[in-house]
Amino acid sequence: MTVSTKQMLARRAIVDAARPLIGSQGFSAVGISQIIEVAGIPKGSFYHYFESKEAFGEELLHLYISDYLAKMDVMFGASRKNGREKILAYCQFWWETHVDGKTGDKCLIVKLGAEVSDLSERMRHILKKGTEQAVERITAIIRAGQEDGSIQSAMNSYILAQALYQQWLGATLMVKITRDSHPFDNAWVATKSFLDHT
Amino acid sequence: MTVSTKQMLARRAIVDAARPLIGSQGFSAVGISQIIEVAGIPKGSFYHYFESKEAFGEELLHLYISDYLAKMDVMFGASRKNGREKILAYCQFWWETHVDGKTGDKCLIVKLGAEVSDLSERMRHILKKGTEQAVERITAIIRAGQEDGSIQSAMNSYILAQALYQQWLGATLMVKITRDSHPFDNAWVATKSFLDHT
Repeated sequence: MTVSTKQMLARRAIVDAARPLIGSQGFSAVGISQIIEVAGIPKGSFYHYFESKEAFGEELLHLYISDYLAKMDVMFGASRKNGREKILAYCQFWWETHVDGKTGDKCLIVKLGAEVSDLSERMRHILKKGTEQAVERITAIIRAGQEDGSIQSAMNSYILAQALYQQWLGATLMVKITRDSHPFDNAWVATKSFLDHT
Repeated sequence: MTVSTKQMLARRAIVDAARPLIGSQGFSAVGISQIIEVAGIPKGSFYHYFESKEAFGEELLHLYISDYLAKMDVMFGASRKNGREKILAYCQFWWETHVDGKTGDKCLIVKLGAEVSDLSERMRHILKKGTEQAVERITAIIRAGQEDGSIQSAMNSYILAQALYQQWLGATLMVKITRDSHPFDNAWVATKSFLDHT
């Protein structure tokens, strides 16, 4: 194992350890001393791994997004489902992650998007690229569903993909505010209606 | 003028002065000393007006939401517009507030929702009640549009109102991330399709 791989794995371990904390408290509210404590690394060693808190934040978002896109690829790659079933499986995954999942698994786009976009251009760019890549994947599945006949909507696949993605982001924000799953119940019913009737 | 009215106006002036700062940096990131500075009140006087930073945050959300609901009532009260026109006027108002408005006018639900809901139960309850009241108003206008024939959608008016509200919240988060109005362009096209075809 090369030193750089070791360093990479250590960075990942620190990010993984700190993610639940940042996922619940936000980026600004969590100090470097708390990251050190939860990751169990020696005091003063943070800057050995990350040149700044912003660089740590970039790595956090970068790893979160690549894991997320990889999960989408597995979900959307399942060959026995039609397009509509894949979209609904993705919505169900989104729902379950937020209602039953651990804090660390919850959506960092919703938790940190509004906060860090005003704070760091570099972090904002990672979010921008990541959300574009997620919407591209949803677009491709909607198009496939329109072709296989499972999605009746005649809307432009990219417009519908963005609308659904925006709706589920908004529903997630509402779930944070209401602390019940009612906004997801609603998004689920509306999503089926949009896929079938628009 | 009674002392309590004076006190109320002073609290409002402090909140109004600090809103752009909190609207851009978030609630946790802005300290009491910054609030004092931007409001131009003497050092040490903050606790004369608010018993805690949380009480200040409650007042900030409370005033933001009552102003917002009053604007909705004016917009939805216009008697010469049909239901569909009123919904589209509301979406256009939402759009313009975020793209052209000053920071202080921008949506505090999106900026602070994810942050403060994990931070303060009292602030979360104000957001919960405020968003419910906004969705109730949208529901009533969708129902009116279904009755006057301008909204073709046969969806349950409350489900559609929530879906549109969620979509515009999500689009606002995406506008913060992308820093362009493309997510609103998309939400606008999708909204018209949902009103006309679902």
